[in-house]
Amino acid sequence: MTKYNYADSRRLPADASPLAGHYYTDPAILQEEVEKIFQSMWTCAGREDEIPEPGDYITRQIGNANVIIVRGEDRKVRAFYNNCRHRGTRICSEPSGRVKGSFQCPYHAWTYGLDGQLIGAPHMAEVENFDKSKFPLAGVGCDVWAGHIFFNLDPNRKPLWEQLEKMPKIMERFNLGDLRRAGRHAYDIKANWKLIVENYSECYHCPLIHPQLNRVTNYLNGGNDAMGANFNGGFQIIGDQFSTLTVKGKKTRPYFKGITKDDQKRVYYYVIYPNLLLSVHPDYLMTHTLWPKEPGVTYVVCEWHFDPEVMKRSDFDPSDAVGFWDMTNKQDWHVCEISQLGVASKGYIPGPFTHQEELLYEFDRFVLDRLAGRTNRKPALAS
Amino acid sequence: MTKYNYADSRRLPADASPLAGHYYTDPAILQEEVEKIFQSMWTCAGREDEIPEPGDYITRQIGNANVIIVRGEDRKVRAFYNNCRHRGTRICSEPSGRVKGSFQCPYHAWTYGLDGQLIGAPHMAEVENFDKSKFPLAGVGCDVWAGHIFFNLDPNRKPLWEQLEKMPKIMERFNLGDLRRAGRHAYDIKANWKLIVENYSECYHCPLIHPQLNRVTNYLNGGNDAMGANFNGGFQIIGDQFSTLTVKGKKTRPYFKGITKDDQKRVYYYVIYPNLLLSVHPDYLMTHTLWPKEPGVTYVVCEWHFDPEVMKRSDFDPSDAVGFWDMTNKQDWHVCEISQLGVASKGYIPGPFTHQEELLYEFDRFVLDRLAGRTNRKPALAS
Amino acid sequence: MTKYNYADSRRLPADASPLAGHYYTDPAILQEEVEKIFQSMWTCAGREDEIPEPGDYITRQIGNANVIIVRGEDRKVRAFYNNCRHRGTRICSEPSGRVKGSFQCPYHAWTYGLDGQLIGAPHMAEVENFDKSKFPLAGVGCDVWAGHIFFNLDPNRKPLWEQLEKMPKIMERFNLGDLRRAGRHAYDIKANWKLIVENYSECYHCPLIHPQLNRVTNYLNGGNDAMGANFNGGFQIIGDQFSTLTVKGKKTRPYFKGITKDDQKRVYYYVIYPNLLLSVHPDYLMTHTLWPKEPGVTYVVCEWHFDPEVMKRSDFDPSDAVGFWDMTNKQDWHVCEISQLGVASKGYIPGPFTHQEELLYEFDRFVLDRLAGRTNRKPALAS
Repeated sequence: MTKYNYADSRRLPADASPLAGHYYTDPAILQEEVEKIFQSMWTCAGREDEIPEPGDYITRQIGNANVIIVRGEDRKVRAFYNNCRHRGTRICSEPSGRVKGSFQCPYHAWTYGLDGQLIGAPHMAEVENFDKSKFPLAGVGCDVWAGHIFFNLDPNRKPLWEQLEKMPKIMERFNLGDLRRAGRHAYDIKANWKLIVENYSECYHCPLIHPQLNRVTNYLNGGNDAMGANFNGGFQIIGDQFSTLTVKGKKTRPYFKGITKDDQKRVYYYVIYPNLLLSVHPDYLMTHTLWPKEPGVTYVVCEWHFDPEVMKRSDFDPSDAVGFWDMTNKQDWHVCEISQLGVASKGYIPGPFTHQEELLYEFDRFVLDRLAGRTNRKPALAS
Repeated sequence: MTKYNYADSRRLPADASPLAGHYYTDPAILQEEVEKIFQSMWTCAGREDEIPEPGDYITRQIGNANVIIVRGEDRKVRAFYNNCRHRGTRICSEPSGRVKGSFQCPYHAWTYGLDGQLIGAPHMAEVENFDKSKFPLAGVGCDVWAGHIFFNLDPNRKPLWEQLEKMPKIMERFNLGDLRRAGRHAYDIKANWKLIVENYSECYHCPLIHPQLNRVTNYLNGGNDAMGANFNGGFQIIGDQFSTLTVKGKKTRPYFKGITKDDQKRVYYYVIYPNLLLSVHPDYLMTHTLWPKEPGVTYVVCEWHFDPEVMKRSDFDPSDAVGFWDMTNKQDWHVCEISQLGVASKGYIPGPFTHQEELLYEFDRFVLDRLAGRTNRKPALAS
Repeated sequence: MTKYNYADSRRLPADASPLAGHYYTDPAILQEEVEKIFQSMWTCAGREDEIPEPGDYITRQIGNANVIIVRGEDRKVRAFYNNCRHRGTRICSEPSGRVKGSFQCPYHAWTYGLDGQLIGAPHMAEVENFDKSKFPLAGVGCDVWAGHIFFNLDPNRKPLWEQLEKMPKIMERFNLGDLRRAGRHAYDIKANWKLIVENYSECYHCPLIHPQLNRVTNYLNGGNDAMGANFNGGFQIIGDQFSTLTVKGKKTRPYFKGITKDDQKRVYYYVIYPNLLLSVHPDYLMTHTLWPKEPGVTYVVCEWHFDPEVMKRSDFDPSDAVGFWDMTNKQDWHVCEISQLGVASKGYIPGPFTHQEELLYEFDRFVLDRLAGRTNRKPALAS
């Protein structure tokens, strides 16, 4: 067993403590979070390789907004509100699909190009002064980093790279943009989205909740190595006799190209605020995207991504990684759900943190800063 | 193809536009609509022939009110709140039924005549000063027009005929009161009641949504011929090779007696505010009654009514009409539901109307007038 | 038929009437009741013999509070909020169970003795100034009367015996503490908790609702013999040819030891505010505990308790009592549910009471007093 990194950490203020109960249960708080966090920041929609061809689209719901994300004829990815400009009808009802060159509203046949321009509106020519160019699909911010699609509903948004800060540089050598998806699970979890982030942010619970995970990456071997205004995270060290996180703890795939010796023995866990969890293994990437639905309900999409070169091999099989983490996910969702029951109860008194839980404090400060309108925050803990 | 009537219409103001999204989603707005529209106007309960004999009753729920409508020993139809005057218990739990001369509360056996008078109250004689005559079932307004039963919860209500205005005169020659029901479908629709009225009020959607309907009555052939303070509507012209709205577009029944040559080639569509849709075909009547349950949920009862003389024939079969419209209804409910999803979303911006959608504007003005307390409104568009 | 006791009662004020409708439907009223009644009084959790051994526990939910009730190593029964002092996680997820000497939080393994003391908290020793003794499970009031466990969330609570007043003395000769449970049914009822108490408090409904019960104890033969600030009740007389309340009306068990001649022909019905209904038969005890969940939903646990000496007999069979009352319960729940539909409706006007319904008035005064903050109330009716 190697050195105990977390014990070195002494960054938490003496009175550091989890959030009060109403932050996890009050519909008004969730509504504020939706408006001030999810609808005002770059939120991750998923991976670009889900829409490889022009006309391929996905839809995403965040709060009361439904968004179409589509690849254009010019191969650029764009995002629009999923509403016809005539009487507001939802245009695409499915979570994903493919159209041929245009979207047609199923109600009155108003038709829009993949760039959002209105190209057909039956009988509107008979209406005095009607000008087609004034009624495109309402566009929202859309950009891509390392294969991850982000969208932003804020009309006054800053560019994606400003929000991501040093994260692209930190991840650069992994070339995550090249990866392709080989597995997907979706979960409806009866817990507040913040409990899921908080659960992800510490391994203090691993001995009890994740015996299989803890065997491969002991909960005491790791450290927090990245702290930004809009992300945080760290890594855990893979035990001597293991090589990656799978049921057997052994790699059946080569290492990602270009990674360091250290990287070969680490799993990195980053929270990219507000909704992307990035788990970088020596040979595969796992992502979670979080979608708050109610104060006590969150929809989570978990996906596994691999080097497309490796995926071409006849013996490629992602199930050791997918199966291991599906099991581990479910262990986590269970404790998140009993946490939700607890923090929703009158008897909940926020208690003291261990040093291993400092990232919870950091993430909670992010939430409180956004709720208070402090959009230009700095990390609370030193990097 | 005959003349294009809708194109002649130039009645909409330049800035006419659908209602804002919260009108379709806000529970407080629905509560106001229930109080200022459904519980303050004559609301249609259904057809008189559903309760042909003394003691036959139906119950209806509108907002938080539940009402019994019963035919008395004198054959008159009356309406009462469905509450015992003792401790308020719901007396009739079923949507319809038959009692023998009286209603008995199932809790403590208080018993009421079909005229609502309290005729039995065990042990109340032992209570000092108890006066049976002071505790009848609480009556509400009830009247019948053309076979349609209406009830009115407003203690200061005006007579039904004042609300109906010219509608009885317009429909007189059809003798709708003589018809009898031969079909019924009920639907729970995940859409606001106003979206359902609005969908009924234009055929601009027919080419895309209703290919079968549009084949028989082309969406461009028709006009709006009736505009009142409390109703509106128009007609569509049946194509040359067709004779009524059925799957085949052919009549298997004689025309209604007494109708004009024009009537024989028309289907009339009237919205009798707030909740009755009257669809008069050359050989049958279809009615919809609308019952808002939540901002995004409406219960709709659709019925088909025929000449009882014709119903006696051995070859009488209503299924060509019932089946055609059940299919067409479901096509409409689907677009109403995706409309609801759309107008409930952040991306909804009310857009411009075509000339074919002027009745939506008229109906929306009715709603806004009632919400603003303008009960003596005039139609917004010229008749 | 013996003398008609209820008719002697002339205690109700002339204007006595049931509560207005919003008391049964308004979530804000229920929230107030939870806080001012259920979370501020001694509330009955069930029977002590459900947790006979050290480490046996039950959990109970009242409003937003979840409580563990556990028997300690010293055999004393104690109650705690079911929340870990670390991050609030619910510790026990099951309604009952057994632990070996301690509770361990399933999230991070914080461990508590059966007396609530924190005895293990991994890695907290590394946290400066952490003092284990300051983080016990948060205790709440717990006491036992006659085998019934009560808990009290009010930090300023008075002792249980003050709340129970004369009730222990009234019940003394029955030695209810010695009884053991032999039957249990739980019900989810779509009615406000007060409608269930009110239904329990009068037999005016018995002829219509309970023909089987009314055959054995005629609804006119009985009286109200106990009225306190925090309880009320009375008795009904068993008909000449019957001996207890079962399907056949015949006893197959001996009388409770030590009861009077009068007791042998009576069934006593007491409401111990706020949530315990005590039905004392000559040969068995039935209890109901009521758990409000929503304004219109109550969870009710009904249990049957017998002399353990009798239970040892080879021919002991509780099913005549359990089956009779399960049938009778369901008859009551049905009328409670149509009562809820009634009082939730616009047409509900509270009416006059019969003399047989005086306990409803008394109970309603209790509720109104507590809502108004009058915790030192006196009974409204003379005892």
